[in-house]
Amino acid sequence: MVTCMKEEAVYSAPVTPASSIRAAATWTFDTLPLQLGGSFGPITLAYETWGTLNGAGDNAILVTHALTGNAHAHDPEHPDDTHDAWWNPLIGPGLTFDTERYFVICSNILGGCYGSTGPASLNPATGRPYNLSFPLVTIRDMVNAQQKLVEHLGVRKLAMVAGGSVGGQQALEWAVSYPEQVERVVVVAATAALTAQAVAFSEVGRQAIMTDPRWQRGNYKPGDGPDAGLAIARMLAMITYQSEEGMEQRFARRPAQRHDSIAPSGFTAFGGPFDVESYLYHQGESLVRRFDANSYLYISRAMDLYDVSTGYPSMQAALSRISSKALFIGIRSDFLFPAARVRQLADEVRQAGGNALYRELDSPLGHDAFLKEWEQMKAALDTIWEQ
Amino acid sequence: MVTCMKEEAVYSAPVTPASSIRAAATWTFDTLPLQLGGSFGPITLAYETWGTLNGAGDNAILVTHALTGNAHAHDPEHPDDTHDAWWNPLIGPGLTFDTERYFVICSNILGGCYGSTGPASLNPATGRPYNLSFPLVTIRDMVNAQQKLVEHLGVRKLAMVAGGSVGGQQALEWAVSYPEQVERVVVVAATAALTAQAVAFSEVGRQAIMTDPRWQRGNYKPGDGPDAGLAIARMLAMITYQSEEGMEQRFARRPAQRHDSIAPSGFTAFGGPFDVESYLYHQGESLVRRFDANSYLYISRAMDLYDVSTGYPSMQAALSRISSKALFIGIRSDFLFPAARVRQLADEVRQAGGNALYRELDSPLGHDAFLKEWEQMKAALDTIWEQ
Repeated sequence: MVTCMKEEAVYSAPVTPASSIRAAATWTFDTLPLQLGGSFGPITLAYETWGTLNGAGDNAILVTHALTGNAHAHDPEHPDDTHDAWWNPLIGPGLTFDTERYFVICSNILGGCYGSTGPASLNPATGRPYNLSFPLVTIRDMVNAQQKLVEHLGVRKLAMVAGGSVGGQQALEWAVSYPEQVERVVVVAATAALTAQAVAFSEVGRQAIMTDPRWQRGNYKPGDGPDAGLAIARMLAMITYQSEEGMEQRFARRPAQRHDSIAPSGFTAFGGPFDVESYLYHQGESLVRRFDANSYLYISRAMDLYDVSTGYPSMQAALSRISSKALFIGIRSDFLFPAARVRQLADEVRQAGGNALYRELDSPLGHDAFLKEWEQMKAALDTIWEQ
Repeated sequence: MVTCMKEEAVYSAPVTPASSIRAAATWTFDTLPLQLGGSFGPITLAYETWGTLNGAGDNAILVTHALTGNAHAHDPEHPDDTHDAWWNPLIGPGLTFDTERYFVICSNILGGCYGSTGPASLNPATGRPYNLSFPLVTIRDMVNAQQKLVEHLGVRKLAMVAGGSVGGQQALEWAVSYPEQVERVVVVAATAALTAQAVAFSEVGRQAIMTDPRWQRGNYKPGDGPDAGLAIARMLAMITYQSEEGMEQRFARRPAQRHDSIAPSGFTAFGGPFDVESYLYHQGESLVRRFDANSYLYISRAMDLYDVSTGYPSMQAALSRISSKALFIGIRSDFLFPAARVRQLADEVRQAGGNALYRELDSPLGHDAFLKEWEQMKAALDTIWEQ
């Protein structure tokens, strides 16, 4: 049914010039049925692995990345650099995801721009980028593609699937779609479905991209995309990844400390920037250098559309499929995926007969705490290993 | 010093076609020293009044409007229409602001686009709109202009100044700048200064306006402005005026109920809109029809820059000037002007020797509750009348 077409080491990079270009393996298969209808292919997934798969094929851990993430969750050469590799402090010899005992896998999601097939990839039928002819892919599609990759790598059973945010949605979907293949699941800062408020923020960001005249209905040339729109979307998203409390601690009303970042419009008039503003300009600029705007549209929409109960008679019916040991981690100050809703999801899994723990990070850092609060993350993750 | 140049009834309307054009009186004076330096004039203020000023000139109430508001706080001909007049249910014979006993005044703020001098007004020196040559005005400037108007109208002492949001900032500024002229002050959903998070949201909206190519550095022609950018700014603002809880109650994940609104980009692709999205498109379209983008930039920046302590040795020094009976009203679910910070302001006024009450609206409607929770607003306002 699925044919392995090729496997090779390539340099994966987003369409727009990346600040860091890194080696990832890729694997290509020919077609995937899609949740919203039809099928799509060929699909290439870029991935990295650390550690060694055992003969039984049951010591693998899949870590799943967030909206603008990539397969580079760990860098053995720079184990202390969290900018270089997003879960570096958790992955490595003797660490939470112990690469001496486990075979840790991370793949760039379907729709991404770090080596996996996404809207910026060339359509082999036309020789041109898909752009908006790329199909609307869902979290379930991303997981189904990952599942093929994991199988291809010889994994019989995943000792754990773990991720935060969009990565947490993927982890949850794994536990529901492939219960027999997932021994443990860790869902961090993700819920059964986004709130209306979160969808609303998401759509404002997309509209900022799509109103940028350089978007050109998605048909921009590489390096000539809707940079201003994408930077605005990122500025907004970065607010939602933090919290009022955390931003107050970090910025308060201090004037700008750095002046090397340019606002999306080129205008910082109207009073001279506050520090929080120059910080946001910098965040916008950084994303534009490393991420494709169409990928942002597709993945953010997949996040909005995700509802774990879709296709099942009820939420309970969906959650009752989970047979993994499950750990749900909420973040006290997260308003994008509120802790109360993460806790509620854990409760619902238990009510549906599942084995679910809930832990909460007591952090002012908001949604992004799962990429920052290393000690609390380790302590929370320990609880599922100890179970 | 200040010369009354003219007084006449005009039709005040924003630059872009307004859905409702209404009569307001205007008064023009020649110059105003500005907080950030220099002076500016001539300044016209559009205003409305209801009720009659007594001979002593001490039965006046000034109500102050929010960011995109105007002088039309009350409409005696349509007293039940809250869309037509923003504090209609509170103003009228026998109501909280009793027009049988009080002379109620509301004026469009300096920088606005509803008849008062703002960036879209013609600069008499050039015969062309000010646009970005309009000076950066502050909340204090707006209040100083109002003070001249109030004096011109024969008011010796204000029985009350009351407003919410940017109107609350004005009310607070009145009590600090003109303590001897303000008998009671009501500050609703406003704080001593915006949080970093609120400034950040504000700046994302401004960048959306200024990246719109039709903005043209502010030199757009009337009716040919940055509609898409302004609509995006409004969509974002409307999220911050509500709350996660309120939006969940109102929209949850329902698909769009109406399809007559167009997204700023013209694209609603990526899955078909949720109800919350079509609602936001409608809100964006509505503001574009009635509000000037440059006014939005100036007033939102005045909101960000406001800090009641500016120019005083300390916050306590500023707040100790207040001699009015003061009522601070927070809203439980407000995250733009968090209730805890409104309460803190009331505490600080008391600590500085003032007479300050704090009341909280127990509402899921977020910041905008001061324009919706009429019964709770009346009950809270009663406490200061009864004092």
